[in-house]
Amino acid sequence: MSNLIRSYAATTKGGLLEPYEFDPGPLGDEQVEIAVEYCGLCHSDLSMLENDWAISTYPFVPGHEAVGKVIAVGDRVKNITLGQRVGLGWMSESCNACTHCLSGDQHLCLTAEATIVNRPGGFADRVRCHWMWAIPVPDTLDLSIAGPLFCGGITVFSPIVHCNVKPTDRVGVIGIGGLGHLAVQFLAKWGCEVTAFTSSDSKHAEALQMGAHHVVNSRDADQLKKIAGSLDFIICTVNVALPWDAILTCLTRRGRLHFVGAVLEPVPVAIFPLMEGQNSISGSPIGGPVVTAQMLDFCARHQIAPITEHFKLSDANAALDHLRSGKARYRIVLENDLA
Amino acid sequence: MSNLIRSYAATTKGGLLEPYEFDPGPLGDEQVEIAVEYCGLCHSDLSMLENDWAISTYPFVPGHEAVGKVIAVGDRVKNITLGQRVGLGWMSESCNACTHCLSGDQHLCLTAEATIVNRPGGFADRVRCHWMWAIPVPDTLDLSIAGPLFCGGITVFSPIVHCNVKPTDRVGVIGIGGLGHLAVQFLAKWGCEVTAFTSSDSKHAEALQMGAHHVVNSRDADQLKKIAGSLDFIICTVNVALPWDAILTCLTRRGRLHFVGAVLEPVPVAIFPLMEGQNSISGSPIGGPVVTAQMLDFCARHQIAPITEHFKLSDANAALDHLRSGKARYRIVLENDLA
Repeated sequence: MSNLIRSYAATTKGGLLEPYEFDPGPLGDEQVEIAVEYCGLCHSDLSMLENDWAISTYPFVPGHEAVGKVIAVGDRVKNITLGQRVGLGWMSESCNACTHCLSGDQHLCLTAEATIVNRPGGFADRVRCHWMWAIPVPDTLDLSIAGPLFCGGITVFSPIVHCNVKPTDRVGVIGIGGLGHLAVQFLAKWGCEVTAFTSSDSKHAEALQMGAHHVVNSRDADQLKKIAGSLDFIICTVNVALPWDAILTCLTRRGRLHFVGAVLEPVPVAIFPLMEGQNSISGSPIGGPVVTAQMLDFCARHQIAPITEHFKLSDANAALDHLRSGKARYRIVLENDLA
Repeated sequence: MSNLIRSYAATTKGGLLEPYEFDPGPLGDEQVEIAVEYCGLCHSDLSMLENDWAISTYPFVPGHEAVGKVIAVGDRVKNITLGQRVGLGWMSESCNACTHCLSGDQHLCLTAEATIVNRPGGFADRVRCHWMWAIPVPDTLDLSIAGPLFCGGITVFSPIVHCNVKPTDRVGVIGIGGLGHLAVQFLAKWGCEVTAFTSSDSKHAEALQMGAHHVVNSRDADQLKKIAGSLDFIICTVNVALPWDAILTCLTRRGRLHFVGAVLEPVPVAIFPLMEGQNSISGSPIGGPVVTAQMLDFCARHQIAPITEHFKLSDANAALDHLRSGKARYRIVLENDLA
């Protein structure tokens, strides 16, 4: 094996992915190297490819839901051993020294490194990260579909934990897509009464199969009115504007609307009803390594799995087109066929 | 003593308060009657007088920070005895049967009765309420200044409790007025590092005397920039628009901006930074009877008291003018001179 990493990269903003080899240099003392078997395709890969957030550099290697076996470990690596099955998500390193890291909020580290920002991601035969962000995959989880848990999954699982959602809660999931279809499964197994909000009638039956108890159309004022004042927690996984006032009226006293989708337009929040209901509005990114491991355990115990569509890594451009079309049901996984 | 209650009422929207007598009818089984000694004047009295919320009825008797001794109790009253010193705030009755009441959130009762909505308030020689909302005043609290605790005080104390503010937190108080000057005192005695936000330079020194450790000008972008990322909790007591984005950047990871002032314009919330910081935005009205009693204990233990200006009840119109002028420092109390 040459030390060169073989990958797929775009050399320009929005460009096609093409084979790209590069020398990763020496492995860091605290790094592990993962032989990528599968890598999920997340909407953030597309945003980065298009430089939507003005932080992309090219050649750009996407991929931040990579799973595979550890094939090299640095001299000071802890917890992780050669041959172990691990996954790598949005973050590849945190400082492990700031207040947030030392409080267990490594995902909120102020100087964290992201897997596909200024470094190559998982659309490759190998990918590296700090040992802390290589999270062991339980034996009973199928590696071919585990990838999407490492970004999409943890993004919706983390708030269930840190927002203190209780099994007795009535909850809502807005958007039944890559994130939402996992949120519905998590919350159903968490013990909650789950209402799925979708504007796509075609997803109604599938949402019920995922574990939702009710489905409402998020753009139908009458349907929202019927569930006014009923929900303790609503997680919003979409990034488009919705009738926010109507959605907020679905909350009961002390209820919370939580955002994990980067809605681009500011959400106008009326303060008087917020006060009256003692409600809150919040947001979060991914989660830390401990919560990620808890999520994987929870998935293994409850047979929770992403619903996936599969492409070869060599067909990454077709996979990107499929994602752009909005027709992915519900998460795309690429199989590494470089080897 | 005639059974007629003597009060001050406005007979028209925004009208002058004039002497007004009315027959309160028989005392309810679960009601107590309080001989009002002092009553605070809150900005909500003014809003109701002006029918700003379109729920006022006339004749309108203001006053929802009333304190005095219990002079009559209904047959089924619990906890409260004749002669006891009590205070009555914004709420005068809750159903004690809905989920929120039964969970200890009586202040979130869906069918609660408010002291000055469709019934006469505390600008009177006597005022009535359900026994649950007559909260005993600890012996060591001076009745002549205790009134403002029952609306202004509990409004800022309740979120310190339900938002789980910790003594190790760095906190901010926006607006050093009737509510804010109590929030600063509570949070300083709670053990927090307190930053007062005010646009009034004249309040700088007084905010420090109240216990604030730092004072910043809430409209000075440079000053806000200096404390970026530093605060765990900010309580906003004003009802005017502020540079919300700049204020939100003062929050640290997991920080919260909490509203207790009914800001009239919707607050535009940018979702991406909310997610990145795992931040939240919330609001609340007053608090329940248990938390109100805890607040009074806390005040007694820490010598926390409203800073008040005093008028006679017969000078209520002058007191209202003083409140309208925005020059009240910091809370107005009326002494009952009807007797």
